[in-house]
Amino acid sequence: MEDTLSALRSLMASHSPPLDALVVPSEDYHQSEYVSARDKRREFVSGFTGSAGLALVTMNKALLWTDGRYFLQALKELSDQWNLMRMGEDPAVDVWMADNLPKEAAIGVDPWSVSIDTAKRWEHAFAKKQQKLVQTSTNLVDEVWKNRPPLEINPVIIHPLEFSGRSIRDKLNDLRENLIREKAHGIIITALDEVAWLYNIRGSDVSYCPVVHAFAIVTSNLAFLYVDKRKASSEVNSYMEENGIEVREYGAVSSDVALLASNDSETENEFDLIWADPGSCCYALYSKLVADKVLLQPSPLALAKAIKNPVELEGLKKAHIRDGAAVVQYLVWLDQQVQEIYGASGYFLDKVGANKKKHSETMKLTEVTASDKLEGFRASKEHFRGLSFPTISSVGPNAAIIHYAPHAETCAEFDPDRIYLFDSGAQYVDGTTDITRTVHFGKPSEHEKACYTAVLKGHISLGNARFPNGTNGHALDILARVPLWNYGLDYRHGTGHGIGSYLNVHEGPHLISFRPHARNVPIQASMTVTDEPGYYEDGSFGIRLENVLIVKEAGTKFNFGDKGYLSFEHITWAPYQTKLIDVSHLTPDEIGWLNSYHSKCRDILAPYLNGSESAWLKKATEPVSI
Amino acid sequence: MEDTLSALRSLMASHSPPLDALVVPSEDYHQSEYVSARDKRREFVSGFTGSAGLALVTMNKALLWTDGRYFLQALKELSDQWNLMRMGEDPAVDVWMADNLPKEAAIGVDPWSVSIDTAKRWEHAFAKKQQKLVQTSTNLVDEVWKNRPPLEINPVIIHPLEFSGRSIRDKLNDLRENLIREKAHGIIITALDEVAWLYNIRGSDVSYCPVVHAFAIVTSNLAFLYVDKRKASSEVNSYMEENGIEVREYGAVSSDVALLASNDSETENEFDLIWADPGSCCYALYSKLVADKVLLQPSPLALAKAIKNPVELEGLKKAHIRDGAAVVQYLVWLDQQVQEIYGASGYFLDKVGANKKKHSETMKLTEVTASDKLEGFRASKEHFRGLSFPTISSVGPNAAIIHYAPHAETCAEFDPDRIYLFDSGAQYVDGTTDITRTVHFGKPSEHEKACYTAVLKGHISLGNARFPNGTNGHALDILARVPLWNYGLDYRHGTGHGIGSYLNVHEGPHLISFRPHARNVPIQASMTVTDEPGYYEDGSFGIRLENVLIVKEAGTKFNFGDKGYLSFEHITWAPYQTKLIDVSHLTPDEIGWLNSYHSKCRDILAPYLNGSESAWLKKATEPVSI
Repeated sequence: MEDTLSALRSLMASHSPPLDALVVPSEDYHQSEYVSARDKRREFVSGFTGSAGLALVTMNKALLWTDGRYFLQALKELSDQWNLMRMGEDPAVDVWMADNLPKEAAIGVDPWSVSIDTAKRWEHAFAKKQQKLVQTSTNLVDEVWKNRPPLEINPVIIHPLEFSGRSIRDKLNDLRENLIREKAHGIIITALDEVAWLYNIRGSDVSYCPVVHAFAIVTSNLAFLYVDKRKASSEVNSYMEENGIEVREYGAVSSDVALLASNDSETENEFDLIWADPGSCCYALYSKLVADKVLLQPSPLALAKAIKNPVELEGLKKAHIRDGAAVVQYLVWLDQQVQEIYGASGYFLDKVGANKKKHSETMKLTEVTASDKLEGFRASKEHFRGLSFPTISSVGPNAAIIHYAPHAETCAEFDPDRIYLFDSGAQYVDGTTDITRTVHFGKPSEHEKACYTAVLKGHISLGNARFPNGTNGHALDILARVPLWNYGLDYRHGTGHGIGSYLNVHEGPHLISFRPHARNVPIQASMTVTDEPGYYEDGSFGIRLENVLIVKEAGTKFNFGDKGYLSFEHITWAPYQTKLIDVSHLTPDEIGWLNSYHSKCRDILAPYLNGSESAWLKKATEPVSI
Repeated sequence: MEDTLSALRSLMASHSPPLDALVVPSEDYHQSEYVSARDKRREFVSGFTGSAGLALVTMNKALLWTDGRYFLQALKELSDQWNLMRMGEDPAVDVWMADNLPKEAAIGVDPWSVSIDTAKRWEHAFAKKQQKLVQTSTNLVDEVWKNRPPLEINPVIIHPLEFSGRSIRDKLNDLRENLIREKAHGIIITALDEVAWLYNIRGSDVSYCPVVHAFAIVTSNLAFLYVDKRKASSEVNSYMEENGIEVREYGAVSSDVALLASNDSETENEFDLIWADPGSCCYALYSKLVADKVLLQPSPLALAKAIKNPVELEGLKKAHIRDGAAVVQYLVWLDQQVQEIYGASGYFLDKVGANKKKHSETMKLTEVTASDKLEGFRASKEHFRGLSFPTISSVGPNAAIIHYAPHAETCAEFDPDRIYLFDSGAQYVDGTTDITRTVHFGKPSEHEKACYTAVLKGHISLGNARFPNGTNGHALDILARVPLWNYGLDYRHGTGHGIGSYLNVHEGPHLISFRPHARNVPIQASMTVTDEPGYYEDGSFGIRLENVLIVKEAGTKFNFGDKGYLSFEHITWAPYQTKLIDVSHLTPDEIGWLNSYHSKCRDILAPYLNGSESAWLKKATEPVSI
């Protein structure tokens, strides 16, 4: 790591102009949340493996900004050379740079790795002290990264209408109507899931996200796909041709954007704007446009993609049933394992198990061996294509690390006296899943039960909400927190995110979060959203419960203001552990909901379970009462 | 009215430059919500008497914008010449002007009557079509207003330390620390309640608000009060002198601001900014400043005033007890009146009364005769100084008009078959009050009960909330709506506002509202806030329940994130009508809260009630159970 920093600093010093600082964001050239191995530049530089963060290297400092989900993990992973900057507590990166870097400092960044919004915000902050954002012509990290993983040539796969539910032509027609409405001549699409959704293609260029490294440009009469042509089979090429899409080399997007801009500036066309999403389009492409001919506005594809069509909704429901069955099979297996190996009292009994913690290494059950088994149950299901994110499989204190990812060599062993939290999901051709359950195979403490119950109450409260059209997820967020706030407890993450249809596990443009967000849009019918409150006690345990919900018309008795009222439908099916619930803290309505959900679980999952699994689930879903 | 519009249009035509439109805001020269009679220019021009709205007069149109509280009232009051523009539904006034007025239009406004923020927003909207905001040198409405009420010379009154709780010197010291922190040389204070609070003075220049028409300027070493000198007694003058405050004529503020600006621009002082609150400072004064030497930021006095000191908190609690006693006395009296005059079954019995609706005119009980009686009960209490806003006393359909103000000639008569809503408050020297109760003296319908119960559930849910420091009232708002949303019901107003300490009944800078607001600040300990959800069915009935709450440390079991957790303390004391509550819709916790509140009501109000009143309250506060 030290070598890396020294090597980077040499390059910074010899750069023209010499750089006082170099920013290394987490994102790839498409502002993706999950990136391919060769795009993990921030991880390579800093050693921090979390999915979100930003590294800043100056001549004598190395700083890493990340958010509350990752504070503990970053402290573990960062070497002494690095300082952790806590987002929300420490100054933001632009404020820090403006305050701490010298007057007229040159701050370098690869302009392909930073969004228009971010670059502009930084430039604004830098203006006070005449500091400059310098676009490096190459990526300096790549130059010092000796063993950078090679480029992979993964095939582009056509996502059939049977699963996508809408034709490319329909989607292009809608997009072009948006262009007309905004008086735009064309749009640059850089978000990988938007390209995949628009052209009904999938790929495997990024772990967990079935996307292809590609750009798209759509004008009033033309459509382009920019992709490494080696990835496109003749079938794909014909498919694109049939749909009026021209396939060009990935690297050609840069000159094509410049061409588009120059064409436009020469004609006296009423529709002369080029649309670029300032949140996802990189600064490199923006720099090729004519500033006053750019329409900087969120891409219309984000919302179009978020509102699922009936085929997608049906697919998501089916995928979640198969996924729920895998989760139940996993719980049954785990329950049996912890009893056999550790003499635990098990999933159902609320007592300390026999003292059988000594065991042979071959019998050992760890966070990783367990989650591998979970993956196996999922992999046996129809339409399985892989995981949708790295499984969080965490015992005891590790469960307090919100986005913990266990590694085989270092991960913890099971401990029947501690809570076990697993947050996992899969990619199926008909839908993407994401579920969290928290369980205890021994005797949970009263405090753990009280916390689990408060999290469950918040989870139920949000899931049962009814609200008028126009309500933002920011307003709904509090419903999941109130039961925790009553104790003076809280959690440092949002409460829900959209989820793709065989696409990214996190997708916008809506969000259920305590932070107001300029891009957050109202929750709308046929969106998906997760419901995942939690509670984390550093060094001790963590609790999170997560289901995926579909937004639907609420069918309320009245319709005040003719707004239309919405509600949620749970599509995730797996039991909550009743042993961890203090039923005396539930209201009659909450008990009614829990029993009804459990009864549905049993019925819906039955066809996917064998006799002993069904018997286990029956026991796990017995009605509770005060 | 027709004459007024014609006269205004003549003045607009002969103005230099000729005006295509004239804006007439509701606010006075201090951006007040309630204004003196001679400042009710918008009401005079349009005939609409609501407290919020904006009139726009063009050569062939007259438009009035107002918000959801006033839609019904405005439709009733506006003549055919006027069009109602519904805020939140129709285009905003600046958008409308930009879209509908011609290119290069000249749009006039009295720059004293419009805030910096508003004027700038309009100018921004006008830029597209090169329209111009023209500052008229006189107020054109005043020129056509023949019977404009004369200027009143009301005395400035010193608000003693016994009630204010903090000396002027302390307040000035804090303010000057703010100036230093912001590198400001001085601050212009234009909000009437801020001037009154800072200098510990009160007055009677505006109905319902015990303020003086005055400005203040405070610099690092000087302090000025701009007021009609005829209002300041020698005692007031000595008091000001003792506190280092120079009293100048009201009109001198304009040239003093110009002087302050010119002094500053000549010196090379590090502290060369002049602070002006863009939300309350008028455009006229801003125009006298040097644009790049102005600190446009909310006045620090708004927050300082909102966080009550212990003396103010004690005073508010006492005032609310006396006020609650007056409300109970009123209910006892009303109950007896409706039974005697109309043969109603009364407050307690849930049945249709005898058919005694015919009665002599002298016996008649109306919205106004009733509210006069309520004022009488209040006026008999210690420290009473007047009402804090026009009493909303509304029978049946009038209760659906959210800010209904009855007039003696036109108001409705009591009807024991209909709901009666009263929202009222008073100014006492030790505190300002604001309470709403909704009652029925006959047989309420099941629907009315269901709605009342849903409103009550929201009221309880917000009032019982616990939340971490940093939580904004925008986030809390939903708690009061969820029970209504469950039915597909809602209300078109915010849920809570700050309340002054013998000052304005509405004060910021916090707000519990479904609308995000740039100026909204987190709820903080020792603030006051109302809790007033409602439900309104046009043409039929309205329900609202309102208590004043004080924000305090919650004393939660835990303190996650070391943020400190807050909760509310109710300081309003008056019963909810149990006849209107469908107890089967309440949770055990809600029933427990209701019974406990009612029991406290009885104990706290007892010393202020006579025997029969106490007996009535005992009955009204009997515990409920399922």
